[in-house]
Amino acid sequence: MWTDPNCPVARTVDLIGDRWSLLIVRDAMDGARSFTDFQQRTGIARNVLADRLRKLAAHDVIEQVEAPSGKRRQYALTAAGQDLFAVIVTLRQWGERHAFEAGEPHSVLVDEHGAVVPPVVPTAPDGSPLTSGTTVVRK
Amino acid sequence: MWTDPNCPVARTVDLIGDRWSLLIVRDAMDGARSFTDFQQRTGIARNVLADRLRKLAAHDVIEQVEAPSGKRRQYALTAAGQDLFAVIVTLRQWGERHAFEAGEPHSVLVDEHGAVVPPVVPTAPDGSPLTSGTTVVRK
Repeated sequence: MWTDPNCPVARTVDLIGDRWSLLIVRDAMDGARSFTDFQQRTGIARNVLADRLRKLAAHDVIEQVEAPSGKRRQYALTAAGQDLFAVIVTLRQWGERHAFEAGEPHSVLVDEHGAVVPPVVPTAPDGSPLTSGTTVVRK
Repeated sequence: MWTDPNCPVARTVDLIGDRWSLLIVRDAMDGARSFTDFQQRTGIARNVLADRLRKLAAHDVIEQVEAPSGKRRQYALTAAGQDLFAVIVTLRQWGERHAFEAGEPHSVLVDEHGAVVPPVVPTAPDGSPLTSGTTVVRK
């Protein structure tokens, strides 16, 4: 079932590492609830959206929730889905640094006080920043 | 060209948000250099690998480098590719938390002193942890 069973990166990527799944998680974090919300925000084809919602639910990333009366079914992130926040933020910050020309406008992630979220940097236990050159995967 | 031009998450996902691209970046961070290295680590089909390497090079995530004499062409992460470290680490840490049963073995990311890399948590400028519930996307 898994591409590389011993590797947590590979397992995550097997579960949610495709364009639409990641954008659905992004939109759920940003308040999307209904099938139509997701469809309109991403422009994704309805059959693909239905497939991804089903898979994300099967993997316990989203769940169906009781909708206010009269409304169609709605979706919400599970605790595991909400825990993808750091993944979505690091994808965002990389894009801000590398996928826009200088001065090109883009959305910004801010906290409750309106402050821009600072760059997320993996650090050692002593707080020093880490890179792929100063870390190693222990099998 | 872009799924959602104003959103840095969507631009990143358009560029590298597929299973094989993310695993190629992971393997390059872990020392893979040659076509055969990538092919053997992921089990990816050769034509798909060639396609992804070409796209990652076109997007300035990897580059071809001079190989030691007698060797075939090799690949290395660009500065932008190396800057995906935080993305790969957060994917890894989510997988460790949510894609393994308790006690199931998996690889571990350690620093130069052998210490396990602590959880990466987005924080406000004052250091307090943030979630999707305490942040908002400003369009």
